[in-house]
Amino acid sequence: MPTKHSTDYLISRKSFTANGKSYHPPGCPVAVICLDGSSDEYINAALAHEKMPNLSGMLQKGGFRGVVRAALPSFTNVNNASIVTGVPPSVHGISGNFFLDPDSGNEVMMNSGSFLRVETILAEAARAGRRVGVVTAKEKLRDILSHGLTGIAFSAEKADQATKITHGIDHVEHLVGAPAPPIYSAEASLFVLAAGVALMHHGLADLLYLSLTDYMQHKHAPGSDQAIEFYSQIDIEIGRLLDGGALVAATADHGMNAKQRMDRTPNVIYLETLLTETFGGGCDVILPITDPYVVHHGSLGSFAVVHLAEHMSAETVGQWILELDGITEVYHRRQAAEKLELPTDRIGDLVVLSVRDVAIGRTPEHHDLTAVAKGLRSHGGRYEEMVPLLLSEPLKPRYAQYADTDPRNFDVFDFALNGTTRI
Amino acid sequence: MPTKHSTDYLISRKSFTANGKSYHPPGCPVAVICLDGSSDEYINAALAHEKMPNLSGMLQKGGFRGVVRAALPSFTNVNNASIVTGVPPSVHGISGNFFLDPDSGNEVMMNSGSFLRVETILAEAARAGRRVGVVTAKEKLRDILSHGLTGIAFSAEKADQATKITHGIDHVEHLVGAPAPPIYSAEASLFVLAAGVALMHHGLADLLYLSLTDYMQHKHAPGSDQAIEFYSQIDIEIGRLLDGGALVAATADHGMNAKQRMDRTPNVIYLETLLTETFGGGCDVILPITDPYVVHHGSLGSFAVVHLAEHMSAETVGQWILELDGITEVYHRRQAAEKLELPTDRIGDLVVLSVRDVAIGRTPEHHDLTAVAKGLRSHGGRYEEMVPLLLSEPLKPRYAQYADTDPRNFDVFDFALNGTTRI
Repeated sequence: MPTKHSTDYLISRKSFTANGKSYHPPGCPVAVICLDGSSDEYINAALAHEKMPNLSGMLQKGGFRGVVRAALPSFTNVNNASIVTGVPPSVHGISGNFFLDPDSGNEVMMNSGSFLRVETILAEAARAGRRVGVVTAKEKLRDILSHGLTGIAFSAEKADQATKITHGIDHVEHLVGAPAPPIYSAEASLFVLAAGVALMHHGLADLLYLSLTDYMQHKHAPGSDQAIEFYSQIDIEIGRLLDGGALVAATADHGMNAKQRMDRTPNVIYLETLLTETFGGGCDVILPITDPYVVHHGSLGSFAVVHLAEHMSAETVGQWILELDGITEVYHRRQAAEKLELPTDRIGDLVVLSVRDVAIGRTPEHHDLTAVAKGLRSHGGRYEEMVPLLLSEPLKPRYAQYADTDPRNFDVFDFALNGTTRI
Repeated sequence: MPTKHSTDYLISRKSFTANGKSYHPPGCPVAVICLDGSSDEYINAALAHEKMPNLSGMLQKGGFRGVVRAALPSFTNVNNASIVTGVPPSVHGISGNFFLDPDSGNEVMMNSGSFLRVETILAEAARAGRRVGVVTAKEKLRDILSHGLTGIAFSAEKADQATKITHGIDHVEHLVGAPAPPIYSAEASLFVLAAGVALMHHGLADLLYLSLTDYMQHKHAPGSDQAIEFYSQIDIEIGRLLDGGALVAATADHGMNAKQRMDRTPNVIYLETLLTETFGGGCDVILPITDPYVVHHGSLGSFAVVHLAEHMSAETVGQWILELDGITEVYHRRQAAEKLELPTDRIGDLVVLSVRDVAIGRTPEHHDLTAVAKGLRSHGGRYEEMVPLLLSEPLKPRYAQYADTDPRNFDVFDFALNGTTRI
């Protein structure tokens, strides 16, 4: 492995603006990592076992570790969209992985860039002359993350299908020195980081967005050997980025909590079943965690939206849902849009959140629990809202002050490009 | 310092029951510590700077570190009462530091054991033959913690006033080798821990509850030199407890967040003022954080109860409050009792929680902001609900499973006495 980044070209320090915010990037490679599903406990456990020496060293040399607030619902697409745009879902429009499209009346995946209502920081950075490289574990995110981007963007999942014309790069497996990994693996994430290192070393990218997948966190608790080993491997790649001269920033899209009973069976409220039994049929409970990767979570998380049937009163049904054990918050559409920063037209009549150890399901028939029968770890609610923010460099005083208010995970590009003492 | 606990008597392993739960204590000294106001970030920062070698060693040898949910409101008296009883406020009756007593109509401190509606684990342990030692930083807690207890109980604040008859011990300053510290100091907490070490070493107590004060956390952010030094000093005392052969368990009563603007001035919603302007006079906003230690927080936290005037509709006022920026949750009395596990008769008509960086005040006249003018760090709401759980010994499998559901900070005695492999 080479240990310095390619210096055969000057990295652009040209300022640019995205969604009303100015960015003044430093003249070094910058790697922003989304550690999908990383609640602080995962990092704590790995650090306690001294398995993250590079992170540890980075913090001892004055780097920053804090806790920031993600966007709700605490899902992958929502928060990745927030991170790359710097704005909440009410502005960028991505309200879940999945939604009921009011125009068509169909339930559809929300993984196309066409659902994005604003530009991305990455696209604007590329326009200002940065060589932007986006690598995501899951193909489902690629279209959103690369929206409007002139640069490199590919997924680990489909790394073998990247071509120069469509992805800004080809022969990715050769570049990384590894085959495209299976999506249900630790390697799906580690490949992303290794690809970032390779892009930087070859001078192909100097502004990286590396978005991992939370398969390991869905399957393994923070103190488990598997989780600790996974973070140890992540740390090795962070070390390579640092050795290559990069400024490294990391946050998460959401945390992760066990949603299971003492016997590790899933702890689920089947909301559509309950509503149909109580108020009659015709309502739809949409679970915006739904995505093609069902082994992770069986489409069970701590956030649901309810589209009521015409005869149902939002007030009555909302109050009834709030009475359920395990439900923490219920909002009417307009309230949800305001309180949770959501796009009014892409949520339901009611928005429902559940407690730390409870997931919301639709009906038992809607969920294949085979993959989560022995343990359900998931996210989506308020208890997966707080996530780490890590920076390899000391903060400027103004950003240290900002960090001591209510910083967000989608400020990570602001912190990385504007907020450190690195120039 | 002697390095072994006094073994000139056999420590009782007799089982006992408190509030429906059985306890089977190990035959070693047990120290349960309430690290007042310790959000995880404080521990992270001190560990990152390698200033907690004893905690670090304890975790590397198989001890447990996890995150548990405190009782709401995330205040000191509420959670100390929960910790020593093992039950939520709906059962033990302590709903704040301060409340409007419905019997007298007066606003009073809730710091007398007479407000407790159940027995404590400590009192029952003493009845079963344990030598119980309770040390609290703040005198305000002593009466609740020592309720029904035959044993030792004193505060650092009034250590010089302890007598054998009233406190189960005298000459405390001589025993600890330090004078009673000022309450607004790091020493107020460190004295508590040093007293615990001394009680154990002299064979005066083999079941310790050591409850610190959060003065330092109110005044200093997690990454500050002062906070890191404070946790380094705490770690030294933890080391002494471990060296003395104790099983050490620690949790917190609540977390801590900055409630300030970028210029570090307090970020406050004066709720009684707003309600009076909008709905007319006659309502009372009670701030249950209120206690005699105003330098900490100026009675500003993220939780308030509202006693409405007769002409006011709970529905209308509640909806209006929820619309306010910075307010996250509003509950009617019965809902609050159910959802937040509160005693119905000791809250208001409405219960209001605010977001991470916002505090709720009564009227500007009610608060002396002198002590918090340059920074307000406080607690009380949902964002200070998650706290650490630390144990010096490995968990039994059943408790490891329980830890992977939704464990509470008030399970700490259950974990310490029943949940580890130590016998």
